[in-house]
Amino acid sequence: MSTSSIENIGVFTSGGDAPGMNAAIRAVVRTALYYNIQVTGIRRGYEGMINGDMFLMDRRSVANIVQRGGTILKTARSELFRTPEGRKIAYEQLQKNKVDALVAIGGDGTFTGAKIFGNEFNMPVVGLPGTIDNDLFGTDFTIGYDTAINTAVSAVDKIRDTAESHDRLFIVEVMGRDCGLIALRTGIATGAEAILIPETINSGIESVFARLERGRRHKSSKIIIVAEADEAGGAFEIGDKIKEKYPNYDTRISILGHIQRGGSPTCMDRVLASRVGVAAVEALLDGHRNEMIGLIHNEISYTDFDHAIKHNTEINANFLKIVEILSL
Amino acid sequence: MSTSSIENIGVFTSGGDAPGMNAAIRAVVRTALYYNIQVTGIRRGYEGMINGDMFLMDRRSVANIVQRGGTILKTARSELFRTPEGRKIAYEQLQKNKVDALVAIGGDGTFTGAKIFGNEFNMPVVGLPGTIDNDLFGTDFTIGYDTAINTAVSAVDKIRDTAESHDRLFIVEVMGRDCGLIALRTGIATGAEAILIPETINSGIESVFARLERGRRHKSSKIIIVAEADEAGGAFEIGDKIKEKYPNYDTRISILGHIQRGGSPTCMDRVLASRVGVAAVEALLDGHRNEMIGLIHNEISYTDFDHAIKHNTEINANFLKIVEILSL
Amino acid sequence: MSTSSIENIGVFTSGGDAPGMNAAIRAVVRTALYYNIQVTGIRRGYEGMINGDMFLMDRRSVANIVQRGGTILKTARSELFRTPEGRKIAYEQLQKNKVDALVAIGGDGTFTGAKIFGNEFNMPVVGLPGTIDNDLFGTDFTIGYDTAINTAVSAVDKIRDTAESHDRLFIVEVMGRDCGLIALRTGIATGAEAILIPETINSGIESVFARLERGRRHKSSKIIIVAEADEAGGAFEIGDKIKEKYPNYDTRISILGHIQRGGSPTCMDRVLASRVGVAAVEALLDGHRNEMIGLIHNEISYTDFDHAIKHNTEINANFLKIVEILSL
Amino acid sequence: MSTSSIENIGVFTSGGDAPGMNAAIRAVVRTALYYNIQVTGIRRGYEGMINGDMFLMDRRSVANIVQRGGTILKTARSELFRTPEGRKIAYEQLQKNKVDALVAIGGDGTFTGAKIFGNEFNMPVVGLPGTIDNDLFGTDFTIGYDTAINTAVSAVDKIRDTAESHDRLFIVEVMGRDCGLIALRTGIATGAEAILIPETINSGIESVFARLERGRRHKSSKIIIVAEADEAGGAFEIGDKIKEKYPNYDTRISILGHIQRGGSPTCMDRVLASRVGVAAVEALLDGHRNEMIGLIHNEISYTDFDHAIKHNTEINANFLKIVEILSL
Repeated sequence: MSTSSIENIGVFTSGGDAPGMNAAIRAVVRTALYYNIQVTGIRRGYEGMINGDMFLMDRRSVANIVQRGGTILKTARSELFRTPEGRKIAYEQLQKNKVDALVAIGGDGTFTGAKIFGNEFNMPVVGLPGTIDNDLFGTDFTIGYDTAINTAVSAVDKIRDTAESHDRLFIVEVMGRDCGLIALRTGIATGAEAILIPETINSGIESVFARLERGRRHKSSKIIIVAEADEAGGAFEIGDKIKEKYPNYDTRISILGHIQRGGSPTCMDRVLASRVGVAAVEALLDGHRNEMIGLIHNEISYTDFDHAIKHNTEINANFLKIVEILSL
Repeated sequence: MSTSSIENIGVFTSGGDAPGMNAAIRAVVRTALYYNIQVTGIRRGYEGMINGDMFLMDRRSVANIVQRGGTILKTARSELFRTPEGRKIAYEQLQKNKVDALVAIGGDGTFTGAKIFGNEFNMPVVGLPGTIDNDLFGTDFTIGYDTAINTAVSAVDKIRDTAESHDRLFIVEVMGRDCGLIALRTGIATGAEAILIPETINSGIESVFARLERGRRHKSSKIIIVAEADEAGGAFEIGDKIKEKYPNYDTRISILGHIQRGGSPTCMDRVLASRVGVAAVEALLDGHRNEMIGLIHNEISYTDFDHAIKHNTEINANFLKIVEILSL
Repeated sequence: MSTSSIENIGVFTSGGDAPGMNAAIRAVVRTALYYNIQVTGIRRGYEGMINGDMFLMDRRSVANIVQRGGTILKTARSELFRTPEGRKIAYEQLQKNKVDALVAIGGDGTFTGAKIFGNEFNMPVVGLPGTIDNDLFGTDFTIGYDTAINTAVSAVDKIRDTAESHDRLFIVEVMGRDCGLIALRTGIATGAEAILIPETINSGIESVFARLERGRRHKSSKIIIVAEADEAGGAFEIGDKIKEKYPNYDTRISILGHIQRGGSPTCMDRVLASRVGVAAVEALLDGHRNEMIGLIHNEISYTDFDHAIKHNTEINANFLKIVEILSL
Repeated sequence: MSTSSIENIGVFTSGGDAPGMNAAIRAVVRTALYYNIQVTGIRRGYEGMINGDMFLMDRRSVANIVQRGGTILKTARSELFRTPEGRKIAYEQLQKNKVDALVAIGGDGTFTGAKIFGNEFNMPVVGLPGTIDNDLFGTDFTIGYDTAINTAVSAVDKIRDTAESHDRLFIVEVMGRDCGLIALRTGIATGAEAILIPETINSGIESVFARLERGRRHKSSKIIIVAEADEAGGAFEIGDKIKEKYPNYDTRISILGHIQRGGSPTCMDRVLASRVGVAAVEALLDGHRNEMIGLIHNEISYTDFDHAIKHNTEINANFLKIVEILSL
């Protein structure tokens, strides 16, 4: 480690909670202590920063949390932090608590705020990708994604039991507002007959009809996975179209919803969170600033906040072909 | 066993599927074979009976299914069976397949049909309580109920992670159209702040408001469990009222839905299904007719179909007091 | 509630930990507070009582623990408490902390100590059945038993996958030193080909040989469930005998061991723990002394400590016949 | 796809079973049918090949198996196949069934046989990495590894509950005869205090003592993860040494054993199996021979059998440092 003037690292979680955030917090805390640096836990993200809701953490603060879902530091969205006044108060609170560097755990909103704040006050900040959506550039996987897809898969497995028993068609909506990755992997893993994701919206309902026609002879139950689209809920709309076209199908809709955020993190999410958590503290000590610490090809990677939040997840075309082949 | 002229027992599942139905089918098949009686599997309940969709089962037919959700015999609802013509065809199909007695696995609809059919054609019929709703009289628990509440509890545990992380109020709707038993146990087991069930509908929303007021100081997250009421969905309505009264709460709604029906049955459901499955065959051989075989106080019980479907589940008043005390 | 002079209830867990102990602690704490009585948490059972390791608990002390395995109050065995001197110190520590009644959560060792202590110092004491072994008289189920058997069942399900894939015979040892109840239910629920329990030890290995002979034609995989017997491990001995008699079988041994104690409690264990926890405080206030609070036929029951620890669990003979019929 | 003379692909599983093998079989079958090629399922690996235990598969043969542990084609080890005579019979059986290409799912033993066989009879063969050990070169992960480590993690989480409740030290042995990868990830994910793996055997017991000394003040419970070493069981030996050095510790041993092989595969294992299963058939059609189809950096990779089984898994040095930092 290079010499560094960092003496007290603040750590916080922001945006939607994701399984593995606690493992990341634990890694940041223990690594800082390992390098004889103090760690300050900030509650409720930027909101708590503004409110001065922070406390010194020690080894025991993070004992026995590696397996817990949610985040012990809590999370919130902050309107005030979007204003220069809010950020100024936040900075003063950090100064009062002698915090001189930050590790921000969250997604694109979190990093957008972190970047502005780091630049405004010349505060060293790095980020960790904590979101179930896997929609960040600069890491193969985000913390929480693996747990979320396993939760979704396990839920669809249960629905398949009922679908098979009743020869039903189920339309199952999974999370992923702008991004179909959860839907895509869940669909492949559960043997879904069709997958509808924002990235291939053009193929749309007609392709679903085509698949249903083709699979008619072979399948008794059918499951269509849909990525959530908007507040109105894409699954219901698609359900209406299918019921209109195939009135004889026994069609049902299930919105998995919030269960996908919680639960004990998978091994992969805990290991990922632990690795990038250690690396984040070391990165700060090495002089990294305004970067997200991720994992690409099983190696630690450093990506500018600007680049990380560009949202350009690409859907692997092979995946769509795999669905086509396997759901026959 | 008394002497009996029964030589071929037909077994089927009907109504909504429930975890443990496969364990019950297995028990019926193996017990019949143990007593040197043939067993005929009838697919899709009364619908399959009418269509003659049935086959002789042997030991291997039920190998390795004790742990599977759903029902290998499938299930369906049959409009035709409600008519005398439909039942007559069904009877002829059973005769053609030499089936001379029936074990019906399902809920009140299933037993209503079984009773009429048994009387019309003088066919020996007994029933097994297979429904997640636990809404039958004559058994402490129905097959599938324990699995369903554990699935619901595990889902609410995940939601609690998010509720805690965000200081949110969640309204979670669980299954149970006419009956609040799933909601009640799920609520106690997850430490819910309030439970809304049809049986106490009068207490209603005002009591929820009162509880929310009282818990305000102590709790950061809040979970309200609601039994499903009607197609419109009770959770959304309740959510609207709470949002109106407490606009500052971060209120979310989650409908658990169909995931509660599937999944590998719990130990309790498998043991229950095995015990009543064995007892059902022995009951037929002993001359029992038109009875549901259940478990009361850990002993096999026999209840007239008429009595079993009377729907008079009573909510244990102590349970409501427990919620009152524990959710403080 | 009757008037009562109790002002501060001490609560502790003792003996082996069991899932649901935390739900029981929570219920005791919140019920005491509901009746405006103080609650003192005592850490590490009788050992902590002697060491004065205790603290006042409030609502927040038990927030968000209903779903956690283990016990937040920790548990230990205490040699010193077996001596009059040790118990005298314990009593003085309770006096110093103004504790004037106790709720002891544990098994027979816990209750033996509680009875002596209660009598020696005229201290009101009641107990809650917290043990995975289900070996107490006066309650249909003990707290932790349902979780333990579900953990065992889920482990054997996984082993069945391998047994089926390799056509193997597995001997799986489950917990239950003096009592075969875990083995019995696990065996029925997993479709075991044979079950060996202390209560039927005479039938022993010869009956296993007979079953293996009989099942030879039908089954490709075989699973034998054995209750743990002594330190040497019954499963290995049985394995040796089977390997000697059937050298062609591909025989493997698995000791489930300590995983059966942990994990998030099932719905049934949480509800049981909550109900008896509420009832324990109310029982103390109503003047009950030296009794274990259990659940018989779904109603709260009160059993003298002396009677509760008599260990006379009887194996339901029907259960053994069910195994005989179903494993064919 | 290039033109190809392949008309009937044989698929089989061999060696230890691994979760996800069924998903791989399903992908091979459906992809072959998609390209209008017949598929023959061969039961019990090379043993079944010699015995002619094979059958034509269709879409329904692999319906509803993507979520099942084990392998529907069963697996076995074959001594006879190690001889030229055995392999000759196997080839004749394949000819009789018109099988003209093979997909072998298994580990190094499987691929060693496949290579010899493919060369001897000029039979097109490709392999899929199906083993929980992740000890193959040419793929980032093997099918079954992710499920196995999640099973191990979930078991250690349960043990942590007991360790915490009793302030105990647990030595937990996980699978991995020659390879510490399961131990390493399980240890990081569960917050183990020390990890002992074959690759760092030199550091051995002294380093464990050092860690125990250092952690003494901070930790109440301790967990040491050990990779299985030999039949005698490494965990017991290490346990004896620790008990000798630290007689005051309450030390317990748990061998996770066979539960690590079974269970429903994780999302990652299902997606991996599906992707390489599709790619295997396409590889055969494209003229690939004697290669294992894996996934490197999220892209399909092709590795000579010779190279794949070289066993040169390297332990990432960073992983060991992470354990050092996080278990403080």
